[in-house]
Amino acid sequence: MLTNRIRNKRLLERIVSKEQAATWISHGMTIGFSGFTSSGDAKTMPEAIAERAKVMREPFNINVYTGASVSPAIDALLSAAGVVHKRLPFQSDPTMRSSINMGKVQYIDQHLSDTADQIRTLALPQVDIAIVEALCVTEEGYIVPTTSCGNTPIFIQNAKEIIVEINLAQPLSLEGLHDIYDPGMPGNRPPIPLIKADQRIGTTYIKTNPGKIRGIVITHCPDTPKNLIQPDEDTKAIASHLLAFLRQEMRKGTLPCPLPPLQSGVGSVANAVFHGFMQAEFTDLQIYSEVLQDSVFDLLDAGKVKSASGGALTLSAEKMEHVLANMDHYRDKVILRPQEMTNNPELIRRLGLIAINTALEVDVYGNVNSTHILGSKMMNGIGGAGDFTRNARISIFVTKSTARDGRISSIVPFASHVDHTEHDVAVVITENGVADLRGLAPRERALSLIYQCAHPVYREQLLSYFTEACQRGGHTPHVLEKALSWHSHYREYDTMLMTAPTDTVHEATPHSLLNQ
Amino acid sequence: MLTNRIRNKRLLERIVSKEQAATWISHGMTIGFSGFTSSGDAKTMPEAIAERAKVMREPFNINVYTGASVSPAIDALLSAAGVVHKRLPFQSDPTMRSSINMGKVQYIDQHLSDTADQIRTLALPQVDIAIVEALCVTEEGYIVPTTSCGNTPIFIQNAKEIIVEINLAQPLSLEGLHDIYDPGMPGNRPPIPLIKADQRIGTTYIKTNPGKIRGIVITHCPDTPKNLIQPDEDTKAIASHLLAFLRQEMRKGTLPCPLPPLQSGVGSVANAVFHGFMQAEFTDLQIYSEVLQDSVFDLLDAGKVKSASGGALTLSAEKMEHVLANMDHYRDKVILRPQEMTNNPELIRRLGLIAINTALEVDVYGNVNSTHILGSKMMNGIGGAGDFTRNARISIFVTKSTARDGRISSIVPFASHVDHTEHDVAVVITENGVADLRGLAPRERALSLIYQCAHPVYREQLLSYFTEACQRGGHTPHVLEKALSWHSHYREYDTMLMTAPTDTVHEATPHSLLNQ
Repeated sequence: MLTNRIRNKRLLERIVSKEQAATWISHGMTIGFSGFTSSGDAKTMPEAIAERAKVMREPFNINVYTGASVSPAIDALLSAAGVVHKRLPFQSDPTMRSSINMGKVQYIDQHLSDTADQIRTLALPQVDIAIVEALCVTEEGYIVPTTSCGNTPIFIQNAKEIIVEINLAQPLSLEGLHDIYDPGMPGNRPPIPLIKADQRIGTTYIKTNPGKIRGIVITHCPDTPKNLIQPDEDTKAIASHLLAFLRQEMRKGTLPCPLPPLQSGVGSVANAVFHGFMQAEFTDLQIYSEVLQDSVFDLLDAGKVKSASGGALTLSAEKMEHVLANMDHYRDKVILRPQEMTNNPELIRRLGLIAINTALEVDVYGNVNSTHILGSKMMNGIGGAGDFTRNARISIFVTKSTARDGRISSIVPFASHVDHTEHDVAVVITENGVADLRGLAPRERALSLIYQCAHPVYREQLLSYFTEACQRGGHTPHVLEKALSWHSHYREYDTMLMTAPTDTVHEATPHSLLNQ
Repeated sequence: MLTNRIRNKRLLERIVSKEQAATWISHGMTIGFSGFTSSGDAKTMPEAIAERAKVMREPFNINVYTGASVSPAIDALLSAAGVVHKRLPFQSDPTMRSSINMGKVQYIDQHLSDTADQIRTLALPQVDIAIVEALCVTEEGYIVPTTSCGNTPIFIQNAKEIIVEINLAQPLSLEGLHDIYDPGMPGNRPPIPLIKADQRIGTTYIKTNPGKIRGIVITHCPDTPKNLIQPDEDTKAIASHLLAFLRQEMRKGTLPCPLPPLQSGVGSVANAVFHGFMQAEFTDLQIYSEVLQDSVFDLLDAGKVKSASGGALTLSAEKMEHVLANMDHYRDKVILRPQEMTNNPELIRRLGLIAINTALEVDVYGNVNSTHILGSKMMNGIGGAGDFTRNARISIFVTKSTARDGRISSIVPFASHVDHTEHDVAVVITENGVADLRGLAPRERALSLIYQCAHPVYREQLLSYFTEACQRGGHTPHVLEKALSWHSHYREYDTMLMTAPTDTVHEATPHSLLNQ
């Protein structure tokens, strides 16, 4: 059995226990863990490291690099053990989040396409040990990843030593799914030869010097499933508005048929939005995205999607079982790439993607906060949203117009944190409608967002702010002393809804607000 | 003489007066003017259009597209005449600025690399008439630009009709300097073949269908010179810090020798910073920038720079005279490209540029405002800064630590507008020092910016805010109700300096602020 998984005979001798491998990790090291979402992450070494930390008397801290978020087996365990000094480039774990917001973990919230180049150009501490899950090691000693590629190639390339977790629970049928391409060093790299979303340009394994593989740990542990909230009325309405928008653009001739490749963010809203395509007329769709969620495979099965390129299979338990059991059916339609390829600015711009990402809040001028609660507390991180929105053909943001049972408005006067500037936000969609901001100046954008996207209960309050701001003048009119008052009001009264809207609102018309 | 300039005989018949050509401009049209900075802009047609507007009885409004800022002959004249409806993608003219801030002109402040693709993909109103300055028209009827390329190729490609201004004041020795490349349609474009900063990949002329050239107007008018403020003590200190930073990185081995290609923003500070290289040891430098200012030619003359690629020659009158008189000396070292090539994300990332841009204000976490005064009033626009900072190998922002004789601090608790998020800001340099933010989490970034970059007179006030914010907690700690209070204080008291700094500051140490 194992000779199938470790095909290089000399490497068979390097099988060790996780406890033994954990002793190689020292205080101050930077560890690059495989994993993108809870797919293909290192599953057993983190526990062994946390156990080791418990019995250590000296200080013991490590920097934790990953692809993106990973399962609690890494983030919850290591942050609870208090051994994480720096963490990058993304997380979504409650325990890790809490440590970050207390300032205990120094979190570097990074564009997911950037980490590899920052390591390559020595802008970040270098990786001491890469701990990577693998399907198998080839005869040459090359490493075949499992359900994600993430930053695994750069970690393997950059690390002084590698610990491989061969996961027997990941079926060998996954072999051949990956497309590993090394773009080379900035300043000395050729154009990336990819010109179509479904094109393969690399190898199915990660090349490495097998001498760097210090140990191999055998595991048997499936990925933590991704449990998604089912579409609700609001997310269904958002999906329906998105489809209507795409339909209209195609009718106007501003979008070709078939549609350009689609990208969608990670999570329940993004999944629900993609699910909307199940009932739509669009066919021959191509996905060029960061992760492939359940909806992508539903669309493949329904014949709506003809190819899907992503960095990870991020699936529910049921869907993962289905996909792994039918891998031969998907093999020529699905490609897994490293995140510096899925999220690559060069490729996103060349392919002309339609990017669909999720906002936490949007200000009236279209600046998007996708990371912070009330300006200070980190939720997850920017992830790949910036990579896509900055370079896509059309950059769409989706959000419900309110949160916390209506006590928070997602459309606010001033974003309490900005991750995506108005320059990069083309279309905003809530359950109420579509604000197409392309070709609009700030004052026009504000009216579009207030009338098309804001929840009606907040509309007058927004208009009141905007009217007062316009009276002060400016290209992007603001009343600075009130700009963040909605957030302060929420902090104090648990709602952004203020009483007694001012009378001036009723006098103002959209046209008069544009010229005063 | 004219047969040298209009080499296609049939086109010789299309010479018209500016007044006659102006009658072709109708209400509601979108006009694409050549010009990037005050170089190579259309010089005589705008005046004729403004004159025509004066005698029109019906409403008369046009959308004005350009490369970037242009001379007052376009922006001041047309905005003063009240004929500009929409304006994009950049401006820096006092009259235009005032119209924008009054809401009279709908200004779309755009990444300079984006306009061409937005026109191509029909995301913007299409160009009815392109009005472009040319050195000459070739036998084939192709158009050779003058001192800038800007958006001229896309305007010519997209327009229904073209009016050419042949400017006899621009010497024919400029011919051959340009490198025009058409990247094609997103979704159906090959990789851009450029892999070295000094490489030519296109033609020296802009291809067009000569049938679209409706008229040719003959002018004789030099570019408006760019008058720069001479380096002062502060900008010299900034340049000196920059050089020390680059020197140190090279010594550490994190930057190669020779340095990666350099980009620098537009204006006096940027020019002064480049001037610093005159006294430095770096040689074999390459420039891959948006505009080529005086300092670039000084560096070429001094043998420090071996090649310079840009989108415009933006020079003082004296330097322009010198350059035009010695074009044969510069011809093999200088390349002028369209702005979607100078500012192209694909190329910036591939070449691994060191990008140096100017900030108006930087918040303590490294978010940069490069456009708005006190959050509302537009200064110029984002220009190309976002194109470069988002994709460069190292993204550096420079600014004096104070403005208005110290009454404004450039380092503030919360940016009143965000153009470049902390994800894209690697290094900040003021006359006080260098904050190298790479690999730092927000709380660490704050201490670096406060101690290295802020003016000493504002340091305690910043620490006081940061201390209070850290006590509230969060990844990016803020006191939202005080976040914009510095700006409000300035508005009311004409200074950001508040009296009586709190006592808590003295108790807080950098280390204690990181962990609480």
